[in-house]
Amino acid sequence: MSKILKIDHLGIAVSNLEEAVKFYRDVLGLELEGFEDIPKQKVRVAMFRVGESRIELVEATSEDSAIYKYIKSRGEGLHHIALRVDDIRVFSREIAGKVDLIYKEPMDILGERLINFIHPKHSKGVMYELVERIKE
Amino acid sequence: MSKILKIDHLGIAVSNLEEAVKFYRDVLGLELEGFEDIPKQKVRVAMFRVGESRIELVEATSEDSAIYKYIKSRGEGLHHIALRVDDIRVFSREIAGKVDLIYKEPMDILGERLINFIHPKHSKGVMYELVERIKE
Repeated sequence: MSKILKIDHLGIAVSNLEEAVKFYRDVLGLELEGFEDIPKQKVRVAMFRVGESRIELVEATSEDSAIYKYIKSRGEGLHHIALRVDDIRVFSREIAGKVDLIYKEPMDILGERLINFIHPKHSKGVMYELVERIKE
Repeated sequence: MSKILKIDHLGIAVSNLEEAVKFYRDVLGLELEGFEDIPKQKVRVAMFRVGESRIELVEATSEDSAIYKYIKSRGEGLHHIALRVDDIRVFSREIAGKVDLIYKEPMDILGERLINFIHPKHSKGVMYELVERIKE
């Protein structure tokens, strides 16, 4: 038995990371925790702490990136809501009969977290990511 | 000096509240806290607890509702991200020189909270609500 613990982060697709950072840091006054390069997903990310969650601004580093395609078809805006689970494999098994997941096995990101996505056909216009943190 | 404390809730526009509730309650296993009618905004809301935040599903109760118009033009999906502040009037004054807010004075919702919205021209495809809770 596994369950959702909290909103891990919100992934917001932006076309210019430096430009977008200004609103979150200088207007909202949020704490910029840092930047992250994720070559596997061809994105660069700026992370802001908000309570127990994060807001992550995501910029494509290649035209192959899902984020590049997303912005091209839908414009900038929320790309996904990431929900933290304690055990992604257990949670995946529990919901397997009800919904489809994008990957057969969770994807390892930088050795720090395991992720998967619920197929968006189930959740009406919102993409849900599941995240288990290996290292906080 | 006022600041953002956490993600208060995510407002997700849905066309059929009962249908949408099933995914959040029966698939994700989130705790349904209850329903709320907000005549002032012509919406009905289902609220789910997620850690220190909530996910709120919002259905229009009239074709005059902003949610009705939103779904008609953009489809179902995330409508706004609500950020909790301790004092909305102080916070509003602090950001006043940098961005425009939608209402001149915070709107009182059911005597429970004060809200306002940052004009979306500043935040690239994401609508940010500010919320001060009078009663939790």
